[in-house]
Amino acid sequence: MAKKPANKSQIEYKGPNTISKSTSSGSVGKLLFVFAILGGLLAFYVYKVVTTPPDLPKYDVNNWWGPYPIDQQKDVSIRPFKIEFSDVIVNDLRERLMHRRPFVPPLEGTGFDYGFNSNFLGQVLHYWENKYNFKDRQNFFNKFDHYKTNIQGLDIHYIHVKPKVSADIEVLPLLMLHGWPGSIREFYELIPKLTTPRPGDNFVFEIIAPSLPGFGYSQSPARKGFGPVETAVLMSNLMKRVGRTQYYIQGGDFGHVIGSTMATLFPEQILGFHTNMPVNTSPVAMFYLWLGSLWPSMLVEHEVQDRVYPLREHVARLLQETGYLHLQATKPDTLGISLTDSPAGLAAYILEKFSTWTNPEFINASDGRLLDKFQLTHLLDNVMMYWAPNSIATSIRTYAEIFSTRTLTMRLDDIPTDVPTWGIKFKHELLFFPDCLLRLKYKNYLHSTMVEEGGHFAAFEMPDVMAKDIFEAVKTFREFHGNERTPSPKDKRIKTIYDFTVKDLSGKEIKLEKYKGYVVLIVNVASQCGLTDTNYKQLNELYEKYSDKGLRILAFPCNQFGGQEPGSAEEIFKFISNRGVKFDIFEKISVNGENAHPLWQFLKNSQSGMIGDFIKWNFSKFLVDRNGVPVDRFAPTVSPLDLESYLVKYL
Amino acid sequence: MAKKPANKSQIEYKGPNTISKSTSSGSVGKLLFVFAILGGLLAFYVYKVVTTPPDLPKYDVNNWWGPYPIDQQKDVSIRPFKIEFSDVIVNDLRERLMHRRPFVPPLEGTGFDYGFNSNFLGQVLHYWENKYNFKDRQNFFNKFDHYKTNIQGLDIHYIHVKPKVSADIEVLPLLMLHGWPGSIREFYELIPKLTTPRPGDNFVFEIIAPSLPGFGYSQSPARKGFGPVETAVLMSNLMKRVGRTQYYIQGGDFGHVIGSTMATLFPEQILGFHTNMPVNTSPVAMFYLWLGSLWPSMLVEHEVQDRVYPLREHVARLLQETGYLHLQATKPDTLGISLTDSPAGLAAYILEKFSTWTNPEFINASDGRLLDKFQLTHLLDNVMMYWAPNSIATSIRTYAEIFSTRTLTMRLDDIPTDVPTWGIKFKHELLFFPDCLLRLKYKNYLHSTMVEEGGHFAAFEMPDVMAKDIFEAVKTFREFHGNERTPSPKDKRIKTIYDFTVKDLSGKEIKLEKYKGYVVLIVNVASQCGLTDTNYKQLNELYEKYSDKGLRILAFPCNQFGGQEPGSAEEIFKFISNRGVKFDIFEKISVNGENAHPLWQFLKNSQSGMIGDFIKWNFSKFLVDRNGVPVDRFAPTVSPLDLESYLVKYL
Repeated sequence: MAKKPANKSQIEYKGPNTISKSTSSGSVGKLLFVFAILGGLLAFYVYKVVTTPPDLPKYDVNNWWGPYPIDQQKDVSIRPFKIEFSDVIVNDLRERLMHRRPFVPPLEGTGFDYGFNSNFLGQVLHYWENKYNFKDRQNFFNKFDHYKTNIQGLDIHYIHVKPKVSADIEVLPLLMLHGWPGSIREFYELIPKLTTPRPGDNFVFEIIAPSLPGFGYSQSPARKGFGPVETAVLMSNLMKRVGRTQYYIQGGDFGHVIGSTMATLFPEQILGFHTNMPVNTSPVAMFYLWLGSLWPSMLVEHEVQDRVYPLREHVARLLQETGYLHLQATKPDTLGISLTDSPAGLAAYILEKFSTWTNPEFINASDGRLLDKFQLTHLLDNVMMYWAPNSIATSIRTYAEIFSTRTLTMRLDDIPTDVPTWGIKFKHELLFFPDCLLRLKYKNYLHSTMVEEGGHFAAFEMPDVMAKDIFEAVKTFREFHGNERTPSPKDKRIKTIYDFTVKDLSGKEIKLEKYKGYVVLIVNVASQCGLTDTNYKQLNELYEKYSDKGLRILAFPCNQFGGQEPGSAEEIFKFISNRGVKFDIFEKISVNGENAHPLWQFLKNSQSGMIGDFIKWNFSKFLVDRNGVPVDRFAPTVSPLDLESYLVKYL
Repeated sequence: MAKKPANKSQIEYKGPNTISKSTSSGSVGKLLFVFAILGGLLAFYVYKVVTTPPDLPKYDVNNWWGPYPIDQQKDVSIRPFKIEFSDVIVNDLRERLMHRRPFVPPLEGTGFDYGFNSNFLGQVLHYWENKYNFKDRQNFFNKFDHYKTNIQGLDIHYIHVKPKVSADIEVLPLLMLHGWPGSIREFYELIPKLTTPRPGDNFVFEIIAPSLPGFGYSQSPARKGFGPVETAVLMSNLMKRVGRTQYYIQGGDFGHVIGSTMATLFPEQILGFHTNMPVNTSPVAMFYLWLGSLWPSMLVEHEVQDRVYPLREHVARLLQETGYLHLQATKPDTLGISLTDSPAGLAAYILEKFSTWTNPEFINASDGRLLDKFQLTHLLDNVMMYWAPNSIATSIRTYAEIFSTRTLTMRLDDIPTDVPTWGIKFKHELLFFPDCLLRLKYKNYLHSTMVEEGGHFAAFEMPDVMAKDIFEAVKTFREFHGNERTPSPKDKRIKTIYDFTVKDLSGKEIKLEKYKGYVVLIVNVASQCGLTDTNYKQLNELYEKYSDKGLRILAFPCNQFGGQEPGSAEEIFKFISNRGVKFDIFEKISVNGENAHPLWQFLKNSQSGMIGDFIKWNFSKFLVDRNGVPVDRFAPTVSPLDLESYLVKYL
């Protein structure tokens, strides 16, 4: 204990008390406030970092992935291959199915909600053991031409279907990439529809459908690090091996990931990318998706909002459906043992996905409603692509590579690609991203086809819809390339607003060509917004002042922000008449989402917003010069009269 | 298009432009600021909600969990039971092991990092098939007395070991609860150490170690909803069945969850809870743990900070180790098929955990260093507890019940319990929570034993350490009950500061009894803090003014906040001498964390802080009345002179 000092020279402090008195409760408030500010600053910093695209990842196109030592003399010819369900394989499989251990019954009243229902599994396994005709199915598999060829040390298996067509039909190479737990089998119904000419189309496809390394009959890499980039390189090498240097890609699931990576690394090779799982998993896109919970209509049209919002429900489904992914990304080899050893376990593990990924409601049925959409024989065909070549264990290692720190830090979805891209969005796909977020990655994302049914295994479930869509996509890709290939939609075919047609309040079509030579201010308006008064008054004022000098103002009513433009055309007409509006007002439209008006799509692409291209609120403003080119963009909070200094530069 | 109105009666708006002009970049700043504020308010709201304990969950002590119809005449006697590895079981198992399918080799250079190494698994399976002596092991298992009895429709299996001791040794019932993928086997080395009297202890344990429902030889519930609460009810009924209404509990893993739930629901039955996985997974505790990343020393002593910080690394390990949990919580029945069917798959799945949960470094070894800590026979014993009774599929359903929305919304860890609790913290346990966060749940959390080795399967790995610790814990529980049992530590045995002894700067012990009759202000001080000047000056001033009226000020240097009191006792003495300090200064101590000084532990318990009991910064102040009872607490930002109005009430 300190003795009290004898020296009493200390200064008595009598200054103003600058440290405010505070109760504990007040401290909490302060603390939270400080955290909030820090959080805001951090968010801005993170935003800056994540919106700066990383460099392209490094890769070696000749890296050896087979077992060492490297064999420089390796046979790299293309060898015909046949799928064979030998007696040894079939008898062993039947033995295992026959001697399967008794499975515990499902809990009372459960369907597929605790996983594959063991009662129904009994029926599936009985069919597999006794009714599945292995020889027939072997012949079925071999109806297309199969090949193997060694690339970078790995024997790669693929189907190659060359259509026989007359000389006036162009044959376009299409690389088809399956996912997990899918296989080349998913494409069997689709392939003939793609290799047969369609009325009105002057092209048809030549199909190259490989088993991905470690899947089906393709050899697995011998060491770590064979992720999406390495797979993309190998696939590009495969296409070169079959003599194709420019081609189209179709993919879903892992096939989407590889296709997207190829479009990112080899844009000069990929003529177009058709994906049935159009996603952008970059942090920025995820953040917008999350932010969209507050105002879904900012991102997604009302009719399809339920595909992603309420986000909570969709995340819950995702959590429920991604346990396999978590385990496969971390301990694939542990899981691989039991799935390698037990055909019953493998069938349950694979086929469960074909139930709940096809339609989330199927989870409540005791048979997972598997047979609503698929034939049991076809489902078991797909299981055979894992069982017969014993490839389940190597296929699931893929997840460890996709979710490795190494792959994740590449931030592949943050690197934009110019390859024209087309998505088809099936209603029950696990992930849904609106077009505006897809465009952050796919700069030439040309179109989304919305399908009001169907799930994750689209090619397998709805081959007709897929075939039609792939033809349409490729037709559009060809039109895209018909014009000079340019790096960004900003200066693509459509260069001015004069290419667009809009409708006036009475529904009459108005070609924007009529504004040629004018400076045009385009704005989305609403009658019931806090900004309405100021904007209408000042727009009128601006118009009065500058219309003689060549200004035109084009106002588009839009109900997407707070529902503040709910009225009919007549009501809007009445509203503007009462206000004495002198400038031009058009039919109510959408400015964001799937159904956004093409003019607005063009405006947004031409003049990007600071935190995303989408329109943030009523009274966003675009300035277009006398040549029809959008030259500036202003936030809703910028008042019309504040634009004068900008306007005069173009008048 | 609207026609320009003929009527030009609109008012020209010329008022001040109140909407500020703003660039897009400015909008971002504003938006982030608004979000930050909203975030702060939301955080405060959430805090208020989560710190209000929920009601105890409802439960029915007689609910029927067996298959319907309910059998009112069910035999509820206690029946002896023997574990049997019959020839049928053994031959079937050996057949399956012999005919196991070839496993794919591990990737080059991998150990256990992709999961169980298949090369090493071959050795394990060869041993199981050829060297594991099933008859010997059956006898080993039966060395304790096993029983079955039907509770709520389920046949429950348990070990019951009654020690034979002289009359002067008290026999205390101890319920031992295993976890997943553990079993009663984990306790076999520990049980004899608990049933044998120890020198110096006048008690010994009677062991009741059940297989949890759905595990080992205990029947599984027939329907959904058998979560931790329902398991706790059934376990309580089991203890009543064996004639024990008051008892101790030991548990880890899922056994911790059940033990904790029993302590929450039945505090009158549980005399003490010993846990080797002391966790508090309430949102508040998790939030503090996260917040602690900023100032680890606020929560955890420096020496053990690496058990939980950097949090990022520990969360990464947790993510890596919880794929099984994610899958078992969502699709247990799918996974259950393959693990039921394949003994190889089951062994890999279970034994992988005994490697990486015992020590994270073991993941790099090709044998997972499994045999460093365990004998292969013993590990396979544990696998047999899942294989022989075919209980793997039902055991993993447990996770679906723990992580069901129904269970999670009960927020069991937010409901405090008064049952005296004692934790033992092994170095490599997957989760680490500092005592201050455990006390949010366990109001009478009496002690943590820190062990500088060992992992998740503590009873199995280190039975000696566990036995010693259980004896010490129960001795302390008995002392605790020796005094009147009170609901909270605030008014427990220690009621005044006079029970404590501290040391002065020279290391001399000072009994705080010497302050009897004085009003005491206790404060933690530091020499290099922004608050140092004001506080020292004003404390001196306060002391000068009120010491005659009976005020004493006790200052404790502490280096836990920003390292702002780094000096030695001599340096501190020099510092206060220079400042002419008149009040009493003591030896440097810790105020937070495992090594916090008991006086400060008592002060914090007596006067809770608004956002947690822990001390937030230098110059926290406690006011103690003339009877030695802490009566108020003030934040560091409250200046000494601001205390006058409070002081005078007690002087």
